Amino acid sequence: MSMRNHAQTIIDAAIRSALPDAAVRRALSDHTFAPGRVVLVAAGKAAWQMAACAADLLGGRIDAGVVVTKYNHSKGPIANFQIFEAGHPVPDENSFRGTQAAIDLISGLTAQDTVLFLLSGGGSALFEKPLISPEELTDLTGQLLGSGADIVEMNTLRKRVSAVKGGRFARLCAPAHVFSIVLSDILGDPLDMIASGPACPDSSTCEQARAIVEKYALKLSPAALSLLEQETPKQLDNVTTRITGSVGQLCASAAETCRVLGYEPVILTDRLDCEARHAGRFLGAVARTHAGKGRKLAFIAGGETVVRLTGKGLGGRNQELALSAAELLDGLDNVLVFSLGSDGTDGPTDAAGGMVDGTTCAALAAQGLRIHDVLADNDAYHALKAVDGLIFTGPTGTNVNDVSVLLIG
Amino acid sequence: MSMRNHAQTIIDAAIRSALPDAAVRRALSDHTFAPGRVVLVAAGKAAWQMAACAADLLGGRIDAGVVVTKYNHSKGPIANFQIFEAGHPVPDENSFRGTQAAIDLISGLTAQDTVLFLLSGGGSALFEKPLISPEELTDLTGQLLGSGADIVEMNTLRKRVSAVKGGRFARLCAPAHVFSIVLSDILGDPLDMIASGPACPDSSTCEQARAIVEKYALKLSPAALSLLEQETPKQLDNVTTRITGSVGQLCASAAETCRVLGYEPVILTDRLDCEARHAGRFLGAVARTHAGKGRKLAFIAGGETVVRLTGKGLGGRNQELALSAAELLDGLDNVLVFSLGSDGTDGPTDAAGGMVDGTTCAALAAQGLRIHDVLADNDAYHALKAVDGLIFTGPTGTNVNDVSVLLIG
Repeated sequence: MSMRNHAQTIIDAAIRSALPDAAVRRALSDHTFAPGRVVLVAAGKAAWQMAACAADLLGGRIDAGVVVTKYNHSKGPIANFQIFEAGHPVPDENSFRGTQAAIDLISGLTAQDTVLFLLSGGGSALFEKPLISPEELTDLTGQLLGSGADIVEMNTLRKRVSAVKGGRFARLCAPAHVFSIVLSDILGDPLDMIASGPACPDSSTCEQARAIVEKYALKLSPAALSLLEQETPKQLDNVTTRITGSVGQLCASAAETCRVLGYEPVILTDRLDCEARHAGRFLGAVARTHAGKGRKLAFIAGGETVVRLTGKGLGGRNQELALSAAELLDGLDNVLVFSLGSDGTDGPTDAAGGMVDGTTCAALAAQGLRIHDVLADNDAYHALKAVDGLIFTGPTGTNVNDVSVLLIG
Repeated sequence: MSMRNHAQTIIDAAIRSALPDAAVRRALSDHTFAPGRVVLVAAGKAAWQMAACAADLLGGRIDAGVVVTKYNHSKGPIANFQIFEAGHPVPDENSFRGTQAAIDLISGLTAQDTVLFLLSGGGSALFEKPLISPEELTDLTGQLLGSGADIVEMNTLRKRVSAVKGGRFARLCAPAHVFSIVLSDILGDPLDMIASGPACPDSSTCEQARAIVEKYALKLSPAALSLLEQETPKQLDNVTTRITGSVGQLCASAAETCRVLGYEPVILTDRLDCEARHAGRFLGAVARTHAGKGRKLAFIAGGETVVRLTGKGLGGRNQELALSAAELLDGLDNVLVFSLGSDGTDGPTDAAGGMVDGTTCAALAAQGLRIHDVLADNDAYHALKAVDGLIFTGPTGTNVNDVSVLLIG
């Protein structure tokens, strides 16, 4: 079995383990529900798969459900659930209708009842009931984006003008218990950031909200200003949360497959966030040091790197990472680096990522391509395409960041 | 013993092991000389220490010696050796005189004799006998620097207009044997690059030299042009080379000390060359993933990162690397990152590098300093100084790149 086949085996298993279905199955495998009713609320880009899997596993135990996902993300009816497709990344009327249906569903539950809350990326836009007019919400978002406010500052305000963000949805569910299964798409799994934390205690304060309005001289209606004075939940006793199917899972699965294939796996990190081309050079430097020393090693780094735009070519962060590594791999035997996005899409391309080895550099040179120039033009896609270095998976149905693997055989 | 004390212990031992004296001692420990004469030629910034150590170890076995080092780098007489101080990075008349003395010394040796050749960084300028006039050499260097030629292209021409570079010094020594001890200051130890490889077969060709002259439309005298037609040695049967005291040694020593202190060491690489701030974020991401999981780990990365200049502050690559890591270490217990230059000088500062832990970020914030802003201004020195995060070693007497260590306890 060639190293490229090894890579493909690792990729397939890692993505399978990070699919929403697998994640929901892991989280439900040892959970016992209270004796009352169970209702399901699923929101986010993976809401349909998560809900369908829960329905399969729990069958008639779920009384009713509301699913809010992105347009074209529903694959058909599930049990008696109401399914909404709505706007993302900008919420629209359907987001609000779906969210209202969820609020109606969880109203009047008792302490014996459970809300099975399935959350995935995109929930911020898809799961929303604004306490101000949609027009003022759009205007506020625009002001914040234009002001240079950071994401923490933005969320501090957004939570206060929402009926469900910042822990408020879980408070609406009380006294029912909320069993929350979260598919994390943010590094480090910050629960209050994923979908703006509808079932997570909020750490931001009214005082901070006022300071942000002042700092950026934001213009708000009197009604909105009075909302800033209403505190979000700081503690939620009715919530149990399982984070699953995150990039950590992607790395753990890659490591396990590497071990089966005879490599000693070393998980370096599951929250890589530096520039793609420098992460690639770092992995390439690791390769150059350990190659040919007689040990079969696999170095694994999960996360989400960033691309520095210096040109106008086509590519993505995973393709840039792989291509940067290629320069240091040049001429080495039995080394391979691959990097891919778990959603199957890397940047604005149809590839999931890139794969390179000790022959890539020479193959590029034979076509007149220099890695330095390709990177300066951010054109990794065409370069890798020319040397059969692209990874294609198609849409995978999950989105838990990226994984990069260096194999030394 | 605190983690900071651990770091200091690791630093001290690593630098000690990479000193020229230790390197020469390791290389000579198992070497047996042929029965003839032994003469010593030492060139480079560490030439004096290497020669002094060899004289100590071999005593009267060395008949005579020539040492060529940088101004202010001689610490006094050694045995009966001729000692020259000369120009660096631009060669001067003393470089040529010292090199001529070395050529005179090795002339007329027999196959029973040995030239003990001690080479260190800076040798390109310090060990030189141009075959063209010094004026034309200066002019050629200027043309090359202005043309955008890369270092490989520059060396291809330089070797051809030199009597000693590109393996030619070793050929002059023949039939005597050359025992070459090389203190490498270039990542990956490319022998033909270190001091332009006086005792290393040259892989560049006359054809390449001609192509470079044409590519950059260089102006050369007829005499210089005819030199380009004279081939450099492609094979040298009279040379034995020991590379020692390189960054690999620095990493190995750090790993050994970490082990003694109870950490499991993982040497990631000994040829890190990406941007300092991204290497720092990479190590920080590794810390964030492994901290608090109950294992005492040490991740070690040697090499030489680069600084991207975006501001006008004071700093160096090691200080930037450490400071970048600090952001991801924020709030973690029992983690520490340090990074330093083995020569004791990081950038244009009096510090050797930087050291940060989980409290650094808060300590900076308390002084109104944000890491993002500090890095944008390339002002790591003042920020680290404000939080007791600088490493001072003074000049160490060696220069084998940098080492960065992440301790997790």
